[in-house]
Amino acid sequence: MFRFWGRAVIFLYTDFGAEGPYLAQVQAVLVAESPSVSVLNLLSNAPAGNPRPAAYLLAALAGTLPSGALVLGVVDPGVGGERLPIVVQAGGHRFVGPDNGLFSRAAARDPGARAWRIDWRPARLSASFHGRDLFAPVAARLAAGVDVPLTEVPLSQLAGSEWPDELSEVVYADVYGNLLTGLRGDGLSDFAVLEAGGRRLRYARTFSAVPAGVAFWYRNSCGLIEIAVNSGSARERLGLGVGAIVRVVGSSA
Amino acid sequence: MFRFWGRAVIFLYTDFGAEGPYLAQVQAVLVAESPSVSVLNLLSNAPAGNPRPAAYLLAALAGTLPSGALVLGVVDPGVGGERLPIVVQAGGHRFVGPDNGLFSRAAARDPGARAWRIDWRPARLSASFHGRDLFAPVAARLAAGVDVPLTEVPLSQLAGSEWPDELSEVVYADVYGNLLTGLRGDGLSDFAVLEAGGRRLRYARTFSAVPAGVAFWYRNSCGLIEIAVNSGSARERLGLGVGAIVRVVGSSA
Amino acid sequence: MFRFWGRAVIFLYTDFGAEGPYLAQVQAVLVAESPSVSVLNLLSNAPAGNPRPAAYLLAALAGTLPSGALVLGVVDPGVGGERLPIVVQAGGHRFVGPDNGLFSRAAARDPGARAWRIDWRPARLSASFHGRDLFAPVAARLAAGVDVPLTEVPLSQLAGSEWPDELSEVVYADVYGNLLTGLRGDGLSDFAVLEAGGRRLRYARTFSAVPAGVAFWYRNSCGLIEIAVNSGSARERLGLGVGAIVRVVGSSA
Repeated sequence: MFRFWGRAVIFLYTDFGAEGPYLAQVQAVLVAESPSVSVLNLLSNAPAGNPRPAAYLLAALAGTLPSGALVLGVVDPGVGGERLPIVVQAGGHRFVGPDNGLFSRAAARDPGARAWRIDWRPARLSASFHGRDLFAPVAARLAAGVDVPLTEVPLSQLAGSEWPDELSEVVYADVYGNLLTGLRGDGLSDFAVLEAGGRRLRYARTFSAVPAGVAFWYRNSCGLIEIAVNSGSARERLGLGVGAIVRVVGSSA
Repeated sequence: MFRFWGRAVIFLYTDFGAEGPYLAQVQAVLVAESPSVSVLNLLSNAPAGNPRPAAYLLAALAGTLPSGALVLGVVDPGVGGERLPIVVQAGGHRFVGPDNGLFSRAAARDPGARAWRIDWRPARLSASFHGRDLFAPVAARLAAGVDVPLTEVPLSQLAGSEWPDELSEVVYADVYGNLLTGLRGDGLSDFAVLEAGGRRLRYARTFSAVPAGVAFWYRNSCGLIEIAVNSGSARERLGLGVGAIVRVVGSSA
Repeated sequence: MFRFWGRAVIFLYTDFGAEGPYLAQVQAVLVAESPSVSVLNLLSNAPAGNPRPAAYLLAALAGTLPSGALVLGVVDPGVGGERLPIVVQAGGHRFVGPDNGLFSRAAARDPGARAWRIDWRPARLSASFHGRDLFAPVAARLAAGVDVPLTEVPLSQLAGSEWPDELSEVVYADVYGNLLTGLRGDGLSDFAVLEAGGRRLRYARTFSAVPAGVAFWYRNSCGLIEIAVNSGSARERLGLGVGAIVRVVGSSA
């Protein structure tokens, strides 16, 4: 377990929103179960109920976290149904949450990744909020070094294990209207031309390298290809959102 | 005072929003006044300036908090006017905030509930932000075990004491578009049929028990009747928001 | 460095939004670099990419912070370009962030204010997220009392040093739809009449002093002139947002 100066830190990656009642209920469980745990909200507006784009964004953001980070990931539209609760170890991090593909992309990027089914169940388990009732207590116990009953499962059995390595789609629109894609920045040359929403987009290193109002693509700070407009919103300008197709159409070299 | 591992925890229940400048000003006072207090945002988008629906939601959410929790509740449209500042003890928790009904439903559910008028005033009291100037210092002192001048008042004198035990209305719409009502889950059988926005709604145990796109009602994770649509937004589908009437119209048994 | 009971507190003032992935990446750096630092989100929806109105709001909010506060301010549309990273000391606080005017109004209000160019650079500096890669490590080191290479620069060389002392515009719209202006509350008498959006607005001490639905101006809890509507949204009623002109047109005395 990674610790900042002796304090365990748990990163929450959810579609709960920042304002509603769900984050605090999870945090209250974490704080109650684990002495001096700290909780950081890595993301609280993951694509709602949509683990596929959320998985590509999480795999990228995990690369910005300190080694040994514990991530509690809850984008869980199948809660109360048949999907399993799992723990995944990949890239030097641990992930706790539902087996719906959310952690599959982080796992796919580490040849040494491992996964476990969670066999523990709480005394009281609601039908609709396993983030609070099941995943949070498990994360708190892992953070505190307490044993949790786990059974290892092959990664190939996990949901999402067949998803492509990169996703040629918008996976997240940020607060500025920038469009993050599921394409990795290190896979394209500066001369690549993208097409999205009927527009062709060229590379720029940063916003201020193009005139105000111009759309471009760049490698963002978590390593993904991102579509942006200097001093504007790519989401509004291109009329695109999560799920929109992004294609590499050529090279300007 | 409940403490998680020696740290006092204060839960904030407000209509301040998560992004604006009001939460941090309250938190800064709490942290400055009370050594090693922790603050969790239980809710920051309570129905704005509307303590009645907020009271039903708070009473339900309080049931999910650890025993001994201290709640700083600020939905305070009458700030700067005549309403009193109060402390309420109910259900094993303490509540600090305005006497406008916000705590009345939590109080009504505990036959042993008690209430006090806050007689203390700060040296500087703004006309529009008692959450920061009055309620936060009082909450911090209670959390730290410091005496605050209080005068007990009968619960029957509190605003909202005459409100009904349950409210047949939508009291909150969450980030997914689920509609939380002021009806308690344990008061209805699985065969009850609800009507809201001209639609009849049947019970399902959880989202995945109905086809995508179907509206239903279920008992949510804080014990309230909630109207939802699998893989969709009940708020958008039914066109309803806070204040919309929900009726029990029959039984499908 | 101001400390609450021995813990360093850093206030974040950003346009990152509360839900996206940017705040947590900054917080993770702060927590990793500085033992037992606490982080409070002073504001996370500053006018996006618009340091001028953000500067007037920050100068006012700084007045509500405890003496010695450290503010990490990131409204940084020019990131990756030529603008310098700076530290400003003013009003008993320290500010770390970009030299684009964001701290200029806080500096202008303190005759003893000083400023420094940050000469340190991290081993890895992304083109688009200096908040995480440059400003956060510097803030953490200052909080921890670690030396950071700095070169003092004259305040007159800072961006925004020529901006007016007050701004006759809306600088922020809060969650209730109240319109905060760049005008100081202590500069106007109660008899002043404002004009905004074609309407004349008179003073009231607080919301409950006017009938529901009536627009008025008042001195808000951080010392600015604010336009509000009792039980309503001034933003919607007047159709105004950030940048709208506010004029003092006369006196009702």
